[in-house]
Formats: sequence, C-alpha cells, structure tokens
Amino acid sequence: MTDGLTHISASGEAHMVDVGDKAETVRIAVAEGRIRMKPETLALIREGNAKKGDVIGTARIAGIMAAKRTSDLIPLCHPLMLSKVTIDIDEEPQLPGLRVTATVKLTGQTGVEMEALTAVSVTCLTIYDMAKAADKGMEIGGIRLIEKTGGKSGHYRYPEAS
Amino acid sequence: MTDGLTHISASGEAHMVDVGDKAETVRIAVAEGRIRMKPETLALIREGNAKKGDVIGTARIAGIMAAKRTSDLIPLCHPLMLSKVTIDIDEEPQLPGLRVTATVKLTGQTGVEMEALTAVSVTCLTIYDMAKAADKGMEIGGIRLIEKTGGKSGHYRYPEAS
Amino acid sequence: MTDGLTHISASGEAHMVDVGDKAETVRIAVAEGRIRMKPETLALIREGNAKKGDVIGTARIAGIMAAKRTSDLIPLCHPLMLSKVTIDIDEEPQLPGLRVTATVKLTGQTGVEMEALTAVSVTCLTIYDMAKAADKGMEIGGIRLIEKTGGKSGHYRYPEAS
Amino acid sequence: MTDGLTHISASGEAHMVDVGDKAETVRIAVAEGRIRMKPETLALIREGNAKKGDVIGTARIAGIMAAKRTSDLIPLCHPLMLSKVTIDIDEEPQLPGLRVTATVKLTGQTGVEMEALTAVSVTCLTIYDMAKAADKGMEIGGIRLIEKTGGKSGHYRYPEAS
Amino acid sequence: MTDGLTHISASGEAHMVDVGDKAETVRIAVAEGRIRMKPETLALIREGNAKKGDVIGTARIAGIMAAKRTSDLIPLCHPLMLSKVTIDIDEEPQLPGLRVTATVKLTGQTGVEMEALTAVSVTCLTIYDMAKAADKGMEIGGIRLIEKTGGKSGHYRYPEAS
Amino acid sequence: MTDGLTHISASGEAHMVDVGDKAETVRIAVAEGRIRMKPETLALIREGNAKKGDVIGTARIAGIMAAKRTSDLIPLCHPLMLSKVTIDIDEEPQLPGLRVTATVKLTGQTGVEMEALTAVSVTCLTIYDMAKAADKGMEIGGIRLIEKTGGKSGHYRYPEAS
Repeated sequence: MTDGLTHISASGEAHMVDVGDKAETVRIAVAEGRIRMKPETLALIREGNAKKGDVIGTARIAGIMAAKRTSDLIPLCHPLMLSKVTIDIDEEPQLPGLRVTATVKLTGQTGVEMEALTAVSVTCLTIYDMAKAADKGMEIGGIRLIEKTGGKSGHYRYPEAS
Repeated sequence: MTDGLTHISASGEAHMVDVGDKAETVRIAVAEGRIRMKPETLALIREGNAKKGDVIGTARIAGIMAAKRTSDLIPLCHPLMLSKVTIDIDEEPQLPGLRVTATVKLTGQTGVEMEALTAVSVTCLTIYDMAKAADKGMEIGGIRLIEKTGGKSGHYRYPEAS
Repeated sequence: MTDGLTHISASGEAHMVDVGDKAETVRIAVAEGRIRMKPETLALIREGNAKKGDVIGTARIAGIMAAKRTSDLIPLCHPLMLSKVTIDIDEEPQLPGLRVTATVKLTGQTGVEMEALTAVSVTCLTIYDMAKAADKGMEIGGIRLIEKTGGKSGHYRYPEAS
Repeated sequence: MTDGLTHISASGEAHMVDVGDKAETVRIAVAEGRIRMKPETLALIREGNAKKGDVIGTARIAGIMAAKRTSDLIPLCHPLMLSKVTIDIDEEPQLPGLRVTATVKLTGQTGVEMEALTAVSVTCLTIYDMAKAADKGMEIGGIRLIEKTGGKSGHYRYPEAS
Repeated sequence: MTDGLTHISASGEAHMVDVGDKAETVRIAVAEGRIRMKPETLALIREGNAKKGDVIGTARIAGIMAAKRTSDLIPLCHPLMLSKVTIDIDEEPQLPGLRVTATVKLTGQTGVEMEALTAVSVTCLTIYDMAKAADKGMEIGGIRLIEKTGGKSGHYRYPEAS
Repeated sequence: MTDGLTHISASGEAHMVDVGDKAETVRIAVAEGRIRMKPETLALIREGNAKKGDVIGTARIAGIMAAKRTSDLIPLCHPLMLSKVTIDIDEEPQLPGLRVTATVKLTGQTGVEMEALTAVSVTCLTIYDMAKAADKGMEIGGIRLIEKTGGKSGHYRYPEAS
C-alpha cells in the first residue's frame, strides 16, 4: 500500500534521493489551505483590500516567492526551475476566513507538491502576520495536496477534495 | 475590539512598521500545529525514528532553521536575533499523526509569534515531504499561536488551548 | 574633504570595518530613484493599479524585502536589525514614469544608507520586470541618498535634493 | 504597440507566468548603468584599484552573485540556471564616474534581462558602499537593457545605445 | 600540465565562465573530509547518537542543504539542479574523530566538485558547532576531491585516495 | 573536563540553546585554515593576483559574506550582528599553498567561533574553485579555532597555535 519512506536510505539515514533517471515530464501540483478568523477581521482585510489590495496582494507575492525557495527550506527537496506559480485567495464567509490555492508547474524529473504546499503555507502565514494586531486567534489549517499530475505515479486527486 | 491592520499605512499601503520606540523586553511565543496521516504512515515514521531518528530529527532541524529565516519569508516581519528556538514533535495516536510545538524566545522590540508559527509550518511541511511517498493524503492543520508573553500587549493565551 | 575608502584596509584589502565602538543612535536614511517609461506604459501600470494594485504593490513588497537582505547582497555591509522600512511610489507624469522613495530606520551602530538605496533599486527593477513585456526601453536612474540622520557624521542632505 | 502586462492575470492579480511551453533557446542580455561621483572619488577608487584592485574587484563579484539571486529578489522572476555572467567596469572620466556593463547568458525558456539589470544595479550599489565614506553624493543612473537576443521576441537593441 | 585559471578572463578579471556549450552528461563527484577531536568528545557524540542520533543527523542535514546552496556561497559557481546528495559520516577511532564523505550527482553542463566539497565542509563545521562546548580544539582537515566522473575532463581520482 | 553537548537537550534532541541570559560582551574569534596545492598552482594564483588580484580578492569577499550567513548554514547557530570581519590570505611557500586567517568581532551574547571557522572554510573553498581547472588535487586542512576572547568561558588559545 505504501512506497515506504524514500528519503530514508536502507540504513535509516536521510538523503536527497536520486531523481536523475526519472523522465522529464510536465508536472503540476495544486495545494490548498485555509485561515479561519473572526468575521470582523475578514471585514478589515476585505476593506484594506478594497482600498489598495495590499493584504491579499502581499500574501500572494509572499507565497509565490516561497514556492521558489522550497528547496532552501525543506531539507531533502531538490532545487527545481518552476515554470509557473499562481496563488488564488478567496473568501469563505462561512469559515469565516480565506481559502488559499496554489498551482505550481514544472517540466522536470520530480514533482512539485512541496512547492505548492509551501506556497500555501507562507501565504497563510503572511495573512496571519498582516492581521495579527487585530486577531491573534486566527488558525491555519486544511493544508493538503488537492491534485497532482505528471510523473511515474500518475494522476492523484485528494479523496474528499471539494 | 481590534487594533486594525498595523502593516497597512493610513493610505492603505503595506509597510514595515516602526518598532524602534518599543521597549526591549523578553518575549516568548509558543505555536502549535498538527499533521494528520494514515496509521500505517505514523508507524513507518515511528519505525524510521526507532532506527536513526531521521524523520523526526530532520523535521526538527528544518523548523529551527526556518524560524531564523522568518523575516526573509514573511514580507513585513522585522529581522530579529532569536535567542532560543525549540521544536517538540509528539505522537497523537488518536489523530492519528504528529503534534508540533515551537517555542521561540527573544529579548527585543517586537514579538516572535511569526517565528514560532513559521517554525511549526516548516516542520510539518518537512514531515509531509519525508513521508509523502507513502501517503499523499496527509493534512496539516491546527496551526495557531498558543501563548505569547512580553511586550506592550502582555500575556496572550489561545482561548481553547489544550 | 573625504574620509578615504574605509572599506579598504591600510594594505589595500577589502574588509568589513569595525563598528563595535560606534554609539547606538537612531539612524534614518531616505533614498530616491526614478524609472522613466513610455506614457502608455505608465498608463498601463496606472490601470493595472486601478484594478488590483498589483504592479505598484508588488514592487513595494520587493523593495521592503530587499532592504532586509542588503547585507546578503552588498559584500561589506553589516547585518542590521532594521526597525522600519517604507517605500513610496509616486507618478511623475512629466518624466514620464515613477519616483520611488525609501525610508529606513534603525537604532544601531551604523547607518542605513545602503538599505535605503538597495530598496529603491529593487523596487525599480521589479517595476521594470512587471512592465517589460510592454516596454523594454525603460530606464532606471537618479538613485541617490536624499537625507541621512544619526551617527557621528550627523545630518546629510543631498545638495540639489528636490 | 505593447504586449500588456504579462505578470498580471486577466483579473488583475500578480502571478509567475507559465514559460513551460516556450522553446529552449540561447538567450543573451546585456545591461548597462553608471555611477557619477566627484573626480577625487574616482581618483581614490583608481588608486585603491592600483594597489590591490579591491573596489572594482569586490563590486564585480557582488554583481555576479546578485545575477544568480535575481529570482530571489524580483518576485515574479523564474529561477534560472545561468550559464555565464560577466561584469565590465570602465572609467568614464567625463562623467566623472564608472560605467558598469553586465552580460548574462542562458540556454532556457525565458530571457535574462532581469539578471543583467540586477547585476548592474548591485555592482553600482557596491561601488557606492565602498566609496560612500568619501562621497555621499554619488548618483546611480542610466540603468537600461542594451541588447537582448534569443526567444520569440527576437533581437532587441536599445534605440540610442552608445 | 595545467589548464590555467578558467575563472580569470584574459585581462585578469573574475567572471562566471560560459558552460552553455558543454555537453549535458551525468556528473558525479565524491569529496571527503575529517574532523579530529579528543576521544572523550567522540564518545560523547557516539552516545548522543545512540540516544536520538541528533549530532550526526543534524550535521548530515546541514551538509545536504549546503550542497544546494553552493552557488550562493562560492562566487563563480553556476546554479545547478542537483539530482542527488548523500552524506556519510563514519567514525575513525584512530584519528580519533569522524570522516565525512559527500556524493553529489547531476545531469548537466558542469561538474559538481564544489557542491561535494561544500557539503563536506559544512557537515564538519556543524559537528564542530554541536560539540564545541566540550572540545574547542577540534580540527577539520583532509578536505579533498576523491573522485569525479562525467564531463570533458573525464574520470578523476585523487592520487593517494584510500 | 567537558561541558557536554549543549545543543542536545536532556532528552537527546537538537535545539537552539537559550543565550538570552548571557551577558553582552565584546567577543572576538580568530580561526585559521590552509589549502595545499602544487607549486605551479601557487605560482598561477600569485601571477593572477599580480595582474588584478582577483583570486585572492574574490576568495576574501566570499569568506566575509559567508561569515554573515553562518546562522543560515549551521543549523543551531544564533543569528548575530557581526561588527567586524577580516580575512587574511598569506602564502606559505613551504606547504606549498595559502594560509587563511579570519577574525570576527561582535558585542553580543554568544561567541563568534563558528562565524570565523565558516569564513575560513568558504575562503578556502573559493580558492579551490578558482584554481581547480589547474589542480584538482588541492587539499583543505588545518581548520581550527586559534583564539577566542569574551564571554563566560574567557580566553581560549589553541594549544599548539603557531
């Protein structure tokens, strides 16, 4: 059922696995996360956004830049030349809060799940940072891989993905 | 009820707020997060850990290093000279999964909430990376500030903190 | 009239000069630069800005983040804990183009001129990047220190500063 | 006349555009900039250079290293594997000052204009840093793309390029 | 007998040499180094390792991450997309101390000697850091390229390699 | 005789130790290393240096920049605001090769041994990189802490320091 822990060598030590023999294919990963906050915090962000868009805009830029730095942050990730990164930030009034979706694309030898998940995480952290003076109780959650295409393991879709 | 969005100037633009007039005090922040996985994935990590401790150990190191790079990742965070970072990773069999707790300390002019939250996020992302060959459906959540001391705003504790 | 080249030691070698004996004072630096473009490029940026503010907003974030990374880019700059960074981006219709002003503040042992100048440069480069599909002939210029306060050398103001 | 702002999506949000379908071609970009200073500052740098070459040599190294970090600084730039970077620094006695020229080469899917412009900017900033004790009034300007080859848009040359 | 200094141009200036015309081949480099310490320091590390493996495990992770950052540290190194990095740390009771071996692999246009040597160096530095409270007199040495395959220069093996 | 492994907590896990209660004192560390090479390689570097000083000058800049990035490379090092870094590179004809000495100074709560040792290591690695086309058999060694002042542990001097 599982492939085991590929980052752990036979003797149990961490290593950066060899992807040199994998095929170069188009690989796309979509990840998602949410940040829950008080309704009045969401209203503040919405208004700030109405003015000059800076809360949402700043978080989006932080997420894109973080995607590019994934191999610098996650010890065993390979350095990759991402060909596309987009971040969507949408309101979820019933949360209440924001839903963050990151899509990352690459033509290469290994997948970009970690890049998409890192982008989502840093986007959420930036939203927290920019609104924390108003609401320290915000909570980041639901960070997961929604979809993944390309590579030997083929198409993956999160079981209960909305 | 809220202090408003201090990262947004009067005219709505993002800026790095002036902390130069704040008092230098001892500031501590504790943040927490969880990664939910299949029971067999947790078992794999536990066994890997039993051998040489590398999954848990690698994630802990990644989290500590990420705490130090927070101001590089979160656009409006101040560069800070952290005096202490610890990461605890504990099993939560009922999740099933792992709970990550980061404690960050500083004597300085601004709080270290973002450093603690960033450390938790990157620790969880690293666990995901190291176990994703076995389980792509893991989910990271419950990332929140548990406690914060020092600074003008005084002591904060997450309302429902366990 | 000049202090000579303090980054060059007596024997002509580059070194990071000792600032350990300097007094800790509040230090502020203001730097400025301009990017000249076609009037229609300026109109495009203005409209883009009108929509969601992303050209100007992205460039501002890039400038703030660059200020924090100055000691990583400029070989002999000291690492500093900046307490404030703001970036103003204003239209100059007669250029035509944009004027970028960065203000950086620190309580510390050395000045923040390089941080302000680096912030201005990277802000301008980001504007170039975001509009270059429309106008490769944009030119960045007029990057200079406008004002500096604090430290032993006292107050400085650019002679012909507007 | 213009291609519009490719970094802005249809709905006005910033994103890192998809270059995955572009052809891999040899791409070269040449950028240029100048730093104007007092004649005696230029003489100081020239003498320092005569001794051990460190002002000019340090600035050149800073520019080369900055070219490699462009995607870390400019939010929507793609990470690229540059195959060549050279920096030329020449005296312009009539300025008086120095002219900086950067040439960057890549075989890849997107151009290297930003890498060349970033290299020029950081080279100039480093010269400013190393001579600022003698001359705070130096001004950096004339930063522009001189020539660009490769890619779909073909050959570009700055209209009035010297 | 020698190829001369390829990083120095005809006129004596440093530049990042053009590798764009080199063939893409599989390139592997193996480097080695040693850290000598008191026998009781080695025992402490061994025991620490027995507990949770953190000294050795932390140093290994630091070395892997450093390999990925080589082009950020060594001014004229090309950015490379490493496909594999492994670090082996073995006891050498007769030193007494530890031997560090790094193996780096890439399919690309230039060799990975510097990545392997940088990984070894940072692994040794991390061991020093983690044990320095017990033993400031540790010495790092014997850092050299053991073997290199791929590329025009073909197979290289250190003359006296054990 | 030893203080034990302060980076390892009571339960054996790695953490960044708390230095917040240590006194702020002036701390200086001097570290040293050597790179052994063929006599003709040394001659090449010397001649290159005679021309424009770039081998030695580039390595010195790399070492200074690396000192500033120590906490980014060594997992459990604290971020520090170094007040001075100097690198001396001297010929040792009898080696034959070069001796690198780094001196780092800080007024702060923790020592700068790792910064000095990291500066020495990266300076040597850069020399290797710049001369490796001529001599792949160079060996880096003798990297050790020569002297350390300031802090609770007081003055340290390497037993057999030359």
